[in-house]
Amino acid sequence: MRILVVNPNTTASMTEKACLAARQVASEGTEIIAVTSAHGPVSIEGYYDEALAVPGMLQAIQAHENFDAVVIACFDDTGLDAARCVTDKPVIGIGEAGYRVASMLANKFSVVTTLARSVPALEHNLLRYGMERQCISVRSSEIPVLELECDGSDAMQKIGQEIEQAIVEDRAEAIVLGCAGMVDLAEKLSAQFAIPVLDGVTCAVSLCESLVRLRVKTSRQGGYAPPPTEKMAASAFHATSRQTTD
Amino acid sequence: MRILVVNPNTTASMTEKACLAARQVASEGTEIIAVTSAHGPVSIEGYYDEALAVPGMLQAIQAHENFDAVVIACFDDTGLDAARCVTDKPVIGIGEAGYRVASMLANKFSVVTTLARSVPALEHNLLRYGMERQCISVRSSEIPVLELECDGSDAMQKIGQEIEQAIVEDRAEAIVLGCAGMVDLAEKLSAQFAIPVLDGVTCAVSLCESLVRLRVKTSRQGGYAPPPTEKMAASAFHATSRQTTD
Amino acid sequence: MRILVVNPNTTASMTEKACLAARQVASEGTEIIAVTSAHGPVSIEGYYDEALAVPGMLQAIQAHENFDAVVIACFDDTGLDAARCVTDKPVIGIGEAGYRVASMLANKFSVVTTLARSVPALEHNLLRYGMERQCISVRSSEIPVLELECDGSDAMQKIGQEIEQAIVEDRAEAIVLGCAGMVDLAEKLSAQFAIPVLDGVTCAVSLCESLVRLRVKTSRQGGYAPPPTEKMAASAFHATSRQTTD
Amino acid sequence: MRILVVNPNTTASMTEKACLAARQVASEGTEIIAVTSAHGPVSIEGYYDEALAVPGMLQAIQAHENFDAVVIACFDDTGLDAARCVTDKPVIGIGEAGYRVASMLANKFSVVTTLARSVPALEHNLLRYGMERQCISVRSSEIPVLELECDGSDAMQKIGQEIEQAIVEDRAEAIVLGCAGMVDLAEKLSAQFAIPVLDGVTCAVSLCESLVRLRVKTSRQGGYAPPPTEKMAASAFHATSRQTTD
Amino acid sequence: MRILVVNPNTTASMTEKACLAARQVASEGTEIIAVTSAHGPVSIEGYYDEALAVPGMLQAIQAHENFDAVVIACFDDTGLDAARCVTDKPVIGIGEAGYRVASMLANKFSVVTTLARSVPALEHNLLRYGMERQCISVRSSEIPVLELECDGSDAMQKIGQEIEQAIVEDRAEAIVLGCAGMVDLAEKLSAQFAIPVLDGVTCAVSLCESLVRLRVKTSRQGGYAPPPTEKMAASAFHATSRQTTD
Amino acid sequence: MRILVVNPNTTASMTEKACLAARQVASEGTEIIAVTSAHGPVSIEGYYDEALAVPGMLQAIQAHENFDAVVIACFDDTGLDAARCVTDKPVIGIGEAGYRVASMLANKFSVVTTLARSVPALEHNLLRYGMERQCISVRSSEIPVLELECDGSDAMQKIGQEIEQAIVEDRAEAIVLGCAGMVDLAEKLSAQFAIPVLDGVTCAVSLCESLVRLRVKTSRQGGYAPPPTEKMAASAFHATSRQTTD
Repeated sequence: MRILVVNPNTTASMTEKACLAARQVASEGTEIIAVTSAHGPVSIEGYYDEALAVPGMLQAIQAHENFDAVVIACFDDTGLDAARCVTDKPVIGIGEAGYRVASMLANKFSVVTTLARSVPALEHNLLRYGMERQCISVRSSEIPVLELECDGSDAMQKIGQEIEQAIVEDRAEAIVLGCAGMVDLAEKLSAQFAIPVLDGVTCAVSLCESLVRLRVKTSRQGGYAPPPTEKMAASAFHATSRQTTD
Repeated sequence: MRILVVNPNTTASMTEKACLAARQVASEGTEIIAVTSAHGPVSIEGYYDEALAVPGMLQAIQAHENFDAVVIACFDDTGLDAARCVTDKPVIGIGEAGYRVASMLANKFSVVTTLARSVPALEHNLLRYGMERQCISVRSSEIPVLELECDGSDAMQKIGQEIEQAIVEDRAEAIVLGCAGMVDLAEKLSAQFAIPVLDGVTCAVSLCESLVRLRVKTSRQGGYAPPPTEKMAASAFHATSRQTTD
Repeated sequence: MRILVVNPNTTASMTEKACLAARQVASEGTEIIAVTSAHGPVSIEGYYDEALAVPGMLQAIQAHENFDAVVIACFDDTGLDAARCVTDKPVIGIGEAGYRVASMLANKFSVVTTLARSVPALEHNLLRYGMERQCISVRSSEIPVLELECDGSDAMQKIGQEIEQAIVEDRAEAIVLGCAGMVDLAEKLSAQFAIPVLDGVTCAVSLCESLVRLRVKTSRQGGYAPPPTEKMAASAFHATSRQTTD
Repeated sequence: MRILVVNPNTTASMTEKACLAARQVASEGTEIIAVTSAHGPVSIEGYYDEALAVPGMLQAIQAHENFDAVVIACFDDTGLDAARCVTDKPVIGIGEAGYRVASMLANKFSVVTTLARSVPALEHNLLRYGMERQCISVRSSEIPVLELECDGSDAMQKIGQEIEQAIVEDRAEAIVLGCAGMVDLAEKLSAQFAIPVLDGVTCAVSLCESLVRLRVKTSRQGGYAPPPTEKMAASAFHATSRQTTD
Repeated sequence: MRILVVNPNTTASMTEKACLAARQVASEGTEIIAVTSAHGPVSIEGYYDEALAVPGMLQAIQAHENFDAVVIACFDDTGLDAARCVTDKPVIGIGEAGYRVASMLANKFSVVTTLARSVPALEHNLLRYGMERQCISVRSSEIPVLELECDGSDAMQKIGQEIEQAIVEDRAEAIVLGCAGMVDLAEKLSAQFAIPVLDGVTCAVSLCESLVRLRVKTSRQGGYAPPPTEKMAASAFHATSRQTTD
Repeated sequence: MRILVVNPNTTASMTEKACLAARQVASEGTEIIAVTSAHGPVSIEGYYDEALAVPGMLQAIQAHENFDAVVIACFDDTGLDAARCVTDKPVIGIGEAGYRVASMLANKFSVVTTLARSVPALEHNLLRYGMERQCISVRSSEIPVLELECDGSDAMQKIGQEIEQAIVEDRAEAIVLGCAGMVDLAEKLSAQFAIPVLDGVTCAVSLCESLVRLRVKTSRQGGYAPPPTEKMAASAFHATSRQTTD
């Protein structure tokens, strides 16, 4: 089984971190193909970054034909719906994956993400997925995404503080870490707080394996129907010409 | 990995059918332990049956110590919350599993279940899981559960009619079959209607494998906190004395 | 008129306290028949206790034929739906009763219950009853149910603190006491805080009288349809054999 | 116990019909005081009539001091919130009462009312009461309110048709008749369709008796706080001068 | 274009303040006709005042024939639905207007209003308009409406404190001032807090201009259908006789 | 006042039609600057087209500095949130505008759009805007967007059929036409069906004029905070290089 993990931003170190985490959780026989988007923002923090990241991400998917499922490795689930139109192979966003796993382990959970500017976009996703009641709060640690890539950052401590408040004030029974860059912190924080602290990348890889084993595909009826061939072709042409220039 | 598949009703042929389906989807290395509840109703159709099935199901879980995850093989997700208090290993109901898989493949889905009397219980679950918007309709085929066990039943045809209406009238993009006894129909119906038609048993087994690989456990904080030891002991005593008489 | 008040746990002192309260509010001519469940947990605190309490409670209802309405004297409304399948006489849970009375007296109310582990189960009920907006908070006083049965407990004080916070922080206009064991505190707390502080037992008895006077019955169409006779008989048999052993 | 039944429209024959129904369901010892509003519309069909009916209704309540509870005998629950500010005695609207009784007897119910123009106002009430999920449909029979007062009307038949559709198409398990003028039809329709068919007047009287026996009052904190004395006095003055002219 | 701005309370100084604000925002060519209700409460603070204010407000609309749109200059949107039955010209409440403008400028907003007793009425409106998620909090400054009319009040400071808390604690991205009497504070507070602080009067006037330019009218189908002529006539008669006495 | 009307697809004839409609409704002194996106899909029908249209649309906004407000002339409100990060001038989508105007004229409305594949994206927007209750149905006429550009199409008739069903079956009191290409049909259909039939382009232009006159800006706090300068610069560079190639 081959799972395509697409990082929709252009920071390769984040792709590597996600890839490493993905490989640790993947079953024997599952191959992880990690791809960094060829153009787009260096990190995704809010609506603007999201919007500019989607075409590059879709091109990355369209450029790889030989895969069984796709993980979108951005916690905003950037372009998830569009990606489901491009391929009938299962596509899962890491935000979505974290929420779905949390809701099988806890009555209520909180999200701890990076910047306040990202919160409304996450809340829109939660509402759309029907998670607006189970997710009791979305907290921001005010750590920019790229700072998570630096050694010596106090990210762990700041995130820990938010987790503690989520448990005490919001009665959160589980935590979803709200950024692909936090993938390496989940295990330690789980141990520290004695509740499930989930990272979306591993959750998404594992759910993808499930869907592939179930041999199910994204529905082609309704909202995820494939675009007409001429539109796909036109867009592929743009992709090519753009990749040449960029 | 060992997955305990508990049939909360006492009809062994349904357990066998579920077990067969579970084994077909299970990964190499996953052992399926299928258990029929020792006492309770012969089928679960609505609130009354649900209520009487739960203690037997909990005893079945408590009687088996050596497992990594539990599937509750009844579409009403009978006793799901109580089971999550009894063990910290992941527990998934087959209704829940079907809904969660459907919501990763389609914008909207419909449920096709057995009797009208079961519909309100399913709708309560959907509301609780936050699926009340994504699940566009719960349709009943008016086939009693046990009729699904008979050769020569016209179940396939009746269910097919409801699926057709769900697609045309409700714009369903996927279908979740609403009874463990329909597990053998999913593949044929998927092919016939060219949209995902999902069976909860296989979905639940596969999601359990995911959770086990992720090494996550049910939260012990809040609603799923384990009951005090003396209560567990008292209940185990009753279980024993009851099993002697029944 | 005869109202059956079933305590679904096995602690007789709680049944007596509920019975006393029920008789104080009952109209002349209303007979209160208070019954302690023959088997099940000693107190109901969360999902696990709920699940084990239901069969005993249903048997208690089935064992008494001569009644006009049933009160389920547990704030989790344990087995309410199942009980409505067993008899067409009105059945009301004390949680439900407290919420419904509060919503006729106040724009918003808070619940003050015993342990945090009970909160998610209550929140699920509130959602199901459509009370998730009118109930502004469910607060736990962290007093175990059975401590309410002890002289010299500081329950009154702890509950009072939560009520004060509910008024100040949540703008609660009324309070529902979230445990049958708090029935004797309602009047004093109402006086102390000058807002309605409601106890579910008295509310449920009074609402039952209403329904009986209206000569209405639980609907037999759909979710509360009576189970087939053979299922009822099978369960009655188990009940008998179990009562012999237990 | 004295229950004030206020008809907020000026049609005395409707008051009499409501009074008759109220007395039939009232307990021994309960006195029904039925009052027709002194000025306002002859029937209440939609927002405009509602708005003009409220001051007259409030004056009727303020003019009667000696009562224990108030029933607002209009299915729109006209002026319910304002009435709860005017007195601390319990006040119940007949729409509210019908919905609350239905929700204790059935998983889902439908409303059958008079004209389409009344439907949005009822739907707003249902949403506010948290009944928007349990009430599966509001159907209009297109019978004007005052036609219900005429002999030889085919109201019974038209309403019956809507009930039948509600059962078959909407899976309604109970029906609430959506007009005070239908009070005399409930019993026959219940028998005909074998599900609870409820009339709001009797439900409201009976619920009022419950609240009075519980010795509870409307909360004086927050939204139902009494208006300052000078405002009450000013309004009383207007009421007097108006009654002189009208 | 002529916009009728109706103050539903009887305090002329508030009408003048609203009129002034309306004229400042109105386009060239738009005439503002400001009207004080002839009878009703001196200020509108909660359900009781609302109810008594509506007939006077409707009469004010019916008395003026030559207008293109109506603004109801009370933040409770007093009688909005009834007013839409009386005329097919667009009618907008200032609460509604503030909410709609805020929701085009911000992901989430807070309301800062006068007294706690007004909060539930506002929350009901927000729910009805579908704003219950975008409006993150309704805060009361505990300044009575008429105090806003006094020189030397500390209203500005108290309101500022609530705005600060709304930004910090509730993550409000915009503020809607919850009283017509605050119309002169919006600009200063916007500058002070560097987020949109909106006043409903100006928002409503401007939205009315939009609707008039679009040449749209209130729907005459369903809930806003005009009342039958005889009802309108009857009410007009009462209005006349009442105006004579008052 | 200058309003930038951006057509996010690349079909110039649609831009012209939108521009014409915009100019007809614009006030004297309002200049309409209509822009066709430089790259992206020829029409926007569902998630995939939306995703590819956003970068071109953002570039169109960034390329024009001298404007007071922006209209996104695609009924999916493509990239609305991202656009609000790029400029603090008000930005309104034509879907959003149609819904907001409809909700000031009617209790409930229906949307009639082009293809079924677009429906889920519209339903997500409606949910996000809090319109999921007021919008009673989203109906598709199964006319592709570009067919609306052809003479002799039977679009008018097909759309009329859906409107008729929306009125009769769904009790819609107003209609929002769900495609920028239907802008020229609104007036005729309004007259034909005697209820408001709204076109989003004119609604958006008119609402933009309102916001500009109110001198309000998009909030810079939270979700619409401007992206850091270096991200804006990076994206502008890509835009340039891309425009050269395309």
